[in-house]
Amino acid sequence: MGLSLMRNQKFMPTIKHLLIISIAINAALLLKLLHHEREWAGLPGPDINGKNEVRLVKDVLHKAKPATDQYINLDHGDPTMYEVYWMQMGDKTTLVLSGWQSISYFSDTKNHCWFLEQGFANAVTRLHHLVGNAQTRNYHIVVGTGSTQLFQAALYALSPSNAPEPMSIVSAAPFYSSYPLIIDCLKSGLYKWKGDASKFNKDDPYIELVTSPNNPDGSIRQAVVNGSGGILVHDLAYYWPQYTPISFQANHDIMLFTVSKCTGHAGIRIGWALVKDKEVAKKMTKFIEISSIGVSKDSQLRAAKILDVIADTYEHTEKFDKATPFFHYVYNEMAKRWRQLRSAVSKGQTFSLPDFPVEKCNFSGQRFGTQPAFAWLKCEKSIDNCEGFLKKHKILTRSGTHFGSSENYVRISLISHKEEYDEFIRRLSLLSSMSSPHE
Amino acid sequence: MGLSLMRNQKFMPTIKHLLIISIAINAALLLKLLHHEREWAGLPGPDINGKNEVRLVKDVLHKAKPATDQYINLDHGDPTMYEVYWMQMGDKTTLVLSGWQSISYFSDTKNHCWFLEQGFANAVTRLHHLVGNAQTRNYHIVVGTGSTQLFQAALYALSPSNAPEPMSIVSAAPFYSSYPLIIDCLKSGLYKWKGDASKFNKDDPYIELVTSPNNPDGSIRQAVVNGSGGILVHDLAYYWPQYTPISFQANHDIMLFTVSKCTGHAGIRIGWALVKDKEVAKKMTKFIEISSIGVSKDSQLRAAKILDVIADTYEHTEKFDKATPFFHYVYNEMAKRWRQLRSAVSKGQTFSLPDFPVEKCNFSGQRFGTQPAFAWLKCEKSIDNCEGFLKKHKILTRSGTHFGSSENYVRISLISHKEEYDEFIRRLSLLSSMSSPHE
Repeated sequence: MGLSLMRNQKFMPTIKHLLIISIAINAALLLKLLHHEREWAGLPGPDINGKNEVRLVKDVLHKAKPATDQYINLDHGDPTMYEVYWMQMGDKTTLVLSGWQSISYFSDTKNHCWFLEQGFANAVTRLHHLVGNAQTRNYHIVVGTGSTQLFQAALYALSPSNAPEPMSIVSAAPFYSSYPLIIDCLKSGLYKWKGDASKFNKDDPYIELVTSPNNPDGSIRQAVVNGSGGILVHDLAYYWPQYTPISFQANHDIMLFTVSKCTGHAGIRIGWALVKDKEVAKKMTKFIEISSIGVSKDSQLRAAKILDVIADTYEHTEKFDKATPFFHYVYNEMAKRWRQLRSAVSKGQTFSLPDFPVEKCNFSGQRFGTQPAFAWLKCEKSIDNCEGFLKKHKILTRSGTHFGSSENYVRISLISHKEEYDEFIRRLSLLSSMSSPHE
Repeated sequence: MGLSLMRNQKFMPTIKHLLIISIAINAALLLKLLHHEREWAGLPGPDINGKNEVRLVKDVLHKAKPATDQYINLDHGDPTMYEVYWMQMGDKTTLVLSGWQSISYFSDTKNHCWFLEQGFANAVTRLHHLVGNAQTRNYHIVVGTGSTQLFQAALYALSPSNAPEPMSIVSAAPFYSSYPLIIDCLKSGLYKWKGDASKFNKDDPYIELVTSPNNPDGSIRQAVVNGSGGILVHDLAYYWPQYTPISFQANHDIMLFTVSKCTGHAGIRIGWALVKDKEVAKKMTKFIEISSIGVSKDSQLRAAKILDVIADTYEHTEKFDKATPFFHYVYNEMAKRWRQLRSAVSKGQTFSLPDFPVEKCNFSGQRFGTQPAFAWLKCEKSIDNCEGFLKKHKILTRSGTHFGSSENYVRISLISHKEEYDEFIRRLSLLSSMSSPHE
């Protein structure tokens, strides 16, 4: 027993020492791990993007309300409204890219679209399947540097290279203000902007751009030219359930989509086309090969991650701890913004807004009217130049004249930061309720 | 003592238990940390890019040598040679992007190039300052989706919009094979490809493209047309010290660079232009705004990280634990590949290669001749169609005819994976030493 005690007495400090060492190791490991977790959560780590991230977190979380004498810029459709949702999702959409990734030009040499990342194609297919807004079976996916590049790729693919006259490109007014700029930018001999589709002479061959819901006015569109030589390109950038009821599964020949207006990531510059005809898809791919030797792989990987997380918020809800699924969250935000807007406009006779028919959304099961990303606002009474009138009151918008319409109208982005939007609504309410808006 | 023993005996199991618990916690934390480290090192973690990364690591580390009956594709300048360096750098270039980054279209509304990330601009300036290959002071930086988009932006900016005839674009043969394809792709009314600069009628206004070192033949170039109405665009994609001695600090009006050929990250699709004239830079920015509404922010952040790490391998060597600094590593690899190539060619009279004058490199202090990313190989003897001859022996190259030259020449990429390159050298040595190459 004495010996036993001696042994124990000698042994005791060793166990104590071991315990102290072990606890010290635990503390060190825990500290290192916490440091990692901070980085994974996108919060400032010392090495990875340090300063920028701190600034951005501050910008998003503590965005200052614009002072009453500051301009509010609602000219562009910059989707900064979406920042808050993605910040709430923490590290769920964090992407880690190693230095040895994205070296090669090629993503998949066996695919006709050789710069298409398979993960991105899978995410696109999965999301359309979830939402039910477009068919993907028997379609070819072409990825582009935003849908802007894809739109040019489509024009290149669809215009004959040896025709005596350039192909006519038309779209019903009010049309997306960038169409004429993009189409006539290089004075192409392949195609030429011919303006309002409803005024088009239908005997010539033409391409009609059908944007639905329409930018700028939110209307649900069909082709308007009834000519025999027509080819249609459908721009479905806004055909997502936060903006409009998903009333049918689109199955047009060429359908263009963009991450910008679906998830809000405009800075990623990624869009995709669903194309029925393989030869058209190949020619679109050729255009992107010539004009930019493919599309950023990093951006495709990033977009894939984000699209997959959106699908996960519906299909793997257990991962998200009570977070509202993506489209439902943004739908609610858009609905709230439209209520605020209609309430402000209804305070007087100064402005008016289009009405939208209520339909059932096959995705959410809800019945609602389109709640577009833009307001197509009309100045009533004696205000001729609506853009100029709002500019005097420090609200920057885009005049109807850019969209093939009149200066009585303006397009206003509704998807900016909340603080900006609230201040816009405050100013609009004041203007709306003024008895004489020219005062 | 008895009591003391009792206390100790009672206490003993508690310390033991604590130790066991503590060690268990040690193990758990260590496992979690190891898991994190694996992810940070870009090695497969379960959630982040799992499958793709496993595949890519395998592809890079265990790239199979092409079987003797397999085609080797050296047609494109795909810079996969660089993968090994970046893999060796482990997590030094790892970029972590949070889900709420890159939402806005805008990077800096105060900069005329509003989609240029400040971190990318800083990294570009820092690298040029380190290498001494181009002036940046008093230059405007324009970022593009690869230098391909910037090249088009330059043509758009430099061609008058109201001229009766399209601007003539020329480049001395052999010229980059994509120039005619890009320039005439849309049959622009602003500019038109007019071929070999050395045959150009110098009375018309024109833009001359000066690529130096030249793609495909590696020659150091000056403008060749001596006309009064000429504007020069310098494509300096290969003016880096792994390819050619940096003999002077370039200060041309418009200089184009690309990440692809500098760091090897072709899949990122990022290039930059250094532009002296502010109005030209603004018009180039306008083109990129119209054609793709800016340039991927993710790719710019990624490129900035990589360019900064390259500079760090020289300016913060303490971070890199004996790793060879970037340009020195790649210089050595290029030198080795050129030795292998010249040795293979010298085995017989079948082929010949251009010689390059030896000059001093102001960056490294070494004296060497240009060691281009491409070989401009000439088939001698009775071989007329060099591309066809090599294709029979399962080596895919690009015929001289695409570069405004003869079919006696081919362009061969020298910057592919080592395994591919070694097999190419083996085959070329065999062909070179054949007494009658038509056998």
